[in-house]
Amino acid sequence: MTAADARPGRLLFVTGGARSGKSRFAEGLAAGSGLPVTYLATAQALDSEMADRIARHRADRPAGWLTVEEPVHLTAALHSVQTPVVLLDCLSLWVSNLLLADWTEDHLASATADLLDAALSRPGLSIVVTNEVGLGIVPDNALARRYRDVLGRANQACAASSHEAWLLVSGLPLKLRG
Amino acid sequence: MTAADARPGRLLFVTGGARSGKSRFAEGLAAGSGLPVTYLATAQALDSEMADRIARHRADRPAGWLTVEEPVHLTAALHSVQTPVVLLDCLSLWVSNLLLADWTEDHLASATADLLDAALSRPGLSIVVTNEVGLGIVPDNALARRYRDVLGRANQACAASSHEAWLLVSGLPLKLRG
Amino acid sequence: MTAADARPGRLLFVTGGARSGKSRFAEGLAAGSGLPVTYLATAQALDSEMADRIARHRADRPAGWLTVEEPVHLTAALHSVQTPVVLLDCLSLWVSNLLLADWTEDHLASATADLLDAALSRPGLSIVVTNEVGLGIVPDNALARRYRDVLGRANQACAASSHEAWLLVSGLPLKLRG
Repeated sequence: MTAADARPGRLLFVTGGARSGKSRFAEGLAAGSGLPVTYLATAQALDSEMADRIARHRADRPAGWLTVEEPVHLTAALHSVQTPVVLLDCLSLWVSNLLLADWTEDHLASATADLLDAALSRPGLSIVVTNEVGLGIVPDNALARRYRDVLGRANQACAASSHEAWLLVSGLPLKLRG
Repeated sequence: MTAADARPGRLLFVTGGARSGKSRFAEGLAAGSGLPVTYLATAQALDSEMADRIARHRADRPAGWLTVEEPVHLTAALHSVQTPVVLLDCLSLWVSNLLLADWTEDHLASATADLLDAALSRPGLSIVVTNEVGLGIVPDNALARRYRDVLGRANQACAASSHEAWLLVSGLPLKLRG
Repeated sequence: MTAADARPGRLLFVTGGARSGKSRFAEGLAAGSGLPVTYLATAQALDSEMADRIARHRADRPAGWLTVEEPVHLTAALHSVQTPVVLLDCLSLWVSNLLLADWTEDHLASATADLLDAALSRPGLSIVVTNEVGLGIVPDNALARRYRDVLGRANQACAASSHEAWLLVSGLPLKLRG
């Protein structure tokens, strides 16, 4: 990957299951640009398990990167990014945050559209990491079923707007598009 | 895709997780044939959540398509289809319906074989949509584990008989065969 | 596949969901070598459901293969294999066995590294089967979340060391590497 790939409005989509190497692969794409990177994190350390995960992920990232933490107002945060490359990790947690804050599905869909518009009109490259959560048994829990539906639609919207898309499996990338 | 692809006995297999864009992709394959299509639905509106899903899917389909709803006797329904193209959506729900009706695994396997024979000997094109459900944690529930096993075997049988097979991920198709 | 592919230290990685055809595909790779095979099984028949699965898998394998059952001390078992080809089925159950035996994550990671060293320094071909379990909804259960994490890391380590890697979907192979 060369600096030329960070041209305005470029969007890369990286998906996969838990512990599939998505974040690491996306970080490699960002680092490969050779340009300054902002890491836009949607995680909140609400419990010690999550705090451990956040700390472990942070320790894995290159030292020079900026980090911005924003669990909800992601489009505003994306507009404020000053570096040519932004790595948003992850769309799935943002959707979960909005769902838990009682956003309606219509509101969620329009927020996702706004976020994608912001990415596609940025002066640089956006890399979006997300999760696949729909390949197991239908969950007993109604909220979990709603989350599968809502995240599935957000992932489809993001993938449809992307210039490159990847599925990570056991740390290995499968190219879906681009 | 041209009309030539709807030649007798042709079988296309479309799989993926929940909200992965399987149905929409399969509908695009059917519409792309340029030929009359019967939509063979296995869903039953047993509760309001399912009724909403069915209504939403139906609203998304081209107006001229015939719809046949058959939750159990799918091979008979397939034999009665008069259009060159049939879109069966979905195998996974049919297997679930049979399992809930206490069909044995042997009966299920032979019903699947009969269904595939009917598809492969039809005068036109059959497109089968199904779900991948085996990529999560082993379910606590014994019925859910049985469903994973039985559906996995039905999916393998159908994919093995197919002329083209696709996995949908975040709305993007990965070709498995063909 | 020819006998040339069984050259020293060669490692093939086969992953997929439950009932995706992983074991059968891996058995085909092993049989395709034309060389003597040891089947290294990590399953223990702790209940009748598991005993049935083991018996069914065993009945599907070629008659001439050796079978070694070892739920925990897999590296030692691998060192003792005398045939040019070994089929280890499966990594995911071994990780589960170690987790249930209260191994720490560090101990698990070093045991995985030792296993991979043993495979990469064997005089012949090793084929490792595993499961993808991270593509469903986040489990409620803390042990299941830990298992996803630990197995995900073991799968990544094994895939990263492999010469060929495959994802099975509905019985059809997608090549991840090689």
